[in-house]
Amino acid sequence: MRIGLIGFGRTGKAVASVLLASEKCSLMWVYRQKTLLEKRRVAEYLGIENDAEGEVYSSSNTSIDELLDNHPVDIIIDFSSATGIYAYGEAAAKRRIKIISAISHYSEKEKMFLSELAKTTTVFWSPNITLGVNFLLFSAKFLKRIAPWVDIEIIEEHFKGKEGVSGTAVKIAESLDLEKSDINSVRVGGIVGKHEIIFGFPYQTVRLIHESISREAFGNGVLFVAENLVDKGIGLFTFEDLMLAYVKE
Amino acid sequence: MRIGLIGFGRTGKAVASVLLASEKCSLMWVYRQKTLLEKRRVAEYLGIENDAEGEVYSSSNTSIDELLDNHPVDIIIDFSSATGIYAYGEAAAKRRIKIISAISHYSEKEKMFLSELAKTTTVFWSPNITLGVNFLLFSAKFLKRIAPWVDIEIIEEHFKGKEGVSGTAVKIAESLDLEKSDINSVRVGGIVGKHEIIFGFPYQTVRLIHESISREAFGNGVLFVAENLVDKGIGLFTFEDLMLAYVKE
Amino acid sequence: MRIGLIGFGRTGKAVASVLLASEKCSLMWVYRQKTLLEKRRVAEYLGIENDAEGEVYSSSNTSIDELLDNHPVDIIIDFSSATGIYAYGEAAAKRRIKIISAISHYSEKEKMFLSELAKTTTVFWSPNITLGVNFLLFSAKFLKRIAPWVDIEIIEEHFKGKEGVSGTAVKIAESLDLEKSDINSVRVGGIVGKHEIIFGFPYQTVRLIHESISREAFGNGVLFVAENLVDKGIGLFTFEDLMLAYVKE
Amino acid sequence: MRIGLIGFGRTGKAVASVLLASEKCSLMWVYRQKTLLEKRRVAEYLGIENDAEGEVYSSSNTSIDELLDNHPVDIIIDFSSATGIYAYGEAAAKRRIKIISAISHYSEKEKMFLSELAKTTTVFWSPNITLGVNFLLFSAKFLKRIAPWVDIEIIEEHFKGKEGVSGTAVKIAESLDLEKSDINSVRVGGIVGKHEIIFGFPYQTVRLIHESISREAFGNGVLFVAENLVDKGIGLFTFEDLMLAYVKE
Repeated sequence: MRIGLIGFGRTGKAVASVLLASEKCSLMWVYRQKTLLEKRRVAEYLGIENDAEGEVYSSSNTSIDELLDNHPVDIIIDFSSATGIYAYGEAAAKRRIKIISAISHYSEKEKMFLSELAKTTTVFWSPNITLGVNFLLFSAKFLKRIAPWVDIEIIEEHFKGKEGVSGTAVKIAESLDLEKSDINSVRVGGIVGKHEIIFGFPYQTVRLIHESISREAFGNGVLFVAENLVDKGIGLFTFEDLMLAYVKE
Repeated sequence: MRIGLIGFGRTGKAVASVLLASEKCSLMWVYRQKTLLEKRRVAEYLGIENDAEGEVYSSSNTSIDELLDNHPVDIIIDFSSATGIYAYGEAAAKRRIKIISAISHYSEKEKMFLSELAKTTTVFWSPNITLGVNFLLFSAKFLKRIAPWVDIEIIEEHFKGKEGVSGTAVKIAESLDLEKSDINSVRVGGIVGKHEIIFGFPYQTVRLIHESISREAFGNGVLFVAENLVDKGIGLFTFEDLMLAYVKE
Repeated sequence: MRIGLIGFGRTGKAVASVLLASEKCSLMWVYRQKTLLEKRRVAEYLGIENDAEGEVYSSSNTSIDELLDNHPVDIIIDFSSATGIYAYGEAAAKRRIKIISAISHYSEKEKMFLSELAKTTTVFWSPNITLGVNFLLFSAKFLKRIAPWVDIEIIEEHFKGKEGVSGTAVKIAESLDLEKSDINSVRVGGIVGKHEIIFGFPYQTVRLIHESISREAFGNGVLFVAENLVDKGIGLFTFEDLMLAYVKE
Repeated sequence: MRIGLIGFGRTGKAVASVLLASEKCSLMWVYRQKTLLEKRRVAEYLGIENDAEGEVYSSSNTSIDELLDNHPVDIIIDFSSATGIYAYGEAAAKRRIKIISAISHYSEKEKMFLSELAKTTTVFWSPNITLGVNFLLFSAKFLKRIAPWVDIEIIEEHFKGKEGVSGTAVKIAESLDLEKSDINSVRVGGIVGKHEIIFGFPYQTVRLIHESISREAFGNGVLFVAENLVDKGIGLFTFEDLMLAYVKE
């Protein structure tokens, strides 16, 4: 799999390092707005021993068509911003390049644009592209369906500075029909990120816990998605779609 | 649902108390070997305010056919022993009474007998008939199928006196293709029972935890199974079968 | 140690069962307001195989002086109510009987009365007389003194019906100078009681967790206190006082 | 406090970054065997915005006496190796420079040398110089002294590759008189490091948990020790000595 990466912030860099370390794919390029790091070899910049030739390109000096024609890829991974999709969406779709978007928040407009692109190519979107969080979401919904009367609360723990309730906790709460008051937010020290869903039964308790160690986890999520899109045709896919295929086996 | 209960040890009593407290079923009788407590009203003996008439019968003085004819039931729940099935199996099957067995260990002979009975009536067997443990088994297998390369270990904690590795932990390990050395057994104080499955990913950790509060949990498991057998025909069913129906929805 | 127990509610009964099972003390009597169970042998009523003669006495039919003169004790344990102290305080103090009060909430008036009694005999008071909770309080205060700048939050989990924030959590918060908003209360299923104090450091996290299994834990707390009061003279003592003696060793 | 750092491996670098970020001390230099990075400004090399002038010196080109005379310090922190102490011990002691050693394993010979140096200056040694682990050790010993009959087991979790039982777990076990079989070692994924001490009482459970987020935790431990040595005279000190001072308050 030849992969192109859109966006090169802190998460983009962590994802690039995981992709470079994997034998399952080749990182052909990184495409970003800033001209900073332009033409640097990604592996070298990240200090990874790997002779992959993929370089950083800036949209200021290289057009997306130029990039896709000179350095063709099978999949584009998007870790840029909500509006990044406009910079490459059509160019990718018309070349049947698969799109994996890991953008956390899209407005309705972008979601509709994704649907539009999904008429021509394979499009995947997950606001939290880690295996663990998506597994939690999936199995928590499953347990709730089995025992709709069970009491559920969420505890999410993050570093002191983090403002607001974690987006992942909100998403979990929504998918389980919980109230915002069912989310307990702890903010202390340097906790990277912990989400715990507590299912209280009368005589037993079930806990589903996800702990983040570092943002490289997103890279492994991307690899999982990329592998599972190989046999998928055009259309819009979610993490749940990919997981369901495993249950049906 | 009219229910008959085979066995009245500590777990049998706890299950009876849950059945008596539920509006979804009526406990018609308890059937046991010992003559102790014979003809006592179950609700009264357990100190539960409930005018249910179900009494304790002993196999020494009442034959199973007599019992089933005079006090018909829809479902028989078995919390007796490995050989209990022979005392009621055929009598139940020929009356099309559904059988729910919660016996932990059966030899091959009994398993074959269950299969035989399942040709005539609905038979269900689970060696650990709690919702929580079966959910853990189910979702752990699911996560392993998604990420077959993930590292997995089990921690099980029980009260100081408990001998050997917990049967539930062994079952979890087997279903995940783990070694016995992947089970860590903690034996301290009065811990009722805790099972934790740890999935170690490179940059994230997922934990599935089940904590037992008391053996009444088996009663709720029985109720779940009974309700989910209502629309099932003849055949042999497991907890996994019942859960799969929820995924397919 | 000859012990008399004031109060025989659910916790009083659990405490009595632990005292009866211990070889370190003899339960001489239970004293309560209600006449229910009067003159029943405590061991027999609780179903404990023990030929201890201690019976239940009611204040309606037996005066405290009569009781203390006919059935002398070394220590009185109080699990009754906030005003129970008035029923036996002076009678105990003038006989130099040690007093262990486990009443959760006293008004200022009762606290002053305890101080008054402590001029004549040994008086101990703890609103949560378990070893575990008091250890948590002690060591949490210690860690906060070492690292006053550390972030601290509390998670307390209890069964669904429990109203309000747990008194123990409030006490922990007060002793650590936390706000009420630093307490996260989870109410699900049948959780007996769990308190977790989370200390968030920049690059590490420390958690102190106490889990209740059953109210018999209060009985073991009483035994610990009773043993540690043996060498104490007149005065008012807290759990912290008893613990400090161990540090100084 | 003017600080000099011996050793600049992965932990040494993490410690340097914490010291540079603190306003309580000045990092005057780093001293190491290798000539790599020689004369680089530490802050610049670590990418920290800080105009601290401290540079890296190599023992190949700069003698310890030269270094200490030209760049005097109040405290030397040692994160090098077991034999590092011989490179600077006497030079430091004769100048009354305080020594903080964080070396994990010393042979008897080095321990005796430390004692010798402690006759002339203030010497501190801790094989795991984090606040959290030392607090766990301290309060676990305290709880065991209060309840010597309690059941105790340890769970330690680390990344898949880590060989052998964690040194910290062994130390905890030794200080609580536990057997090696009471340590449960989990090795999965990328877990940085977690130590849990479980105290099992008959009707309650206490857990002390330490989770490492990153090795910068050693830097905060060093700062704590350095501040608490300010008022200490000559002699050999441990982390427990420093903690005891807080209890006695």
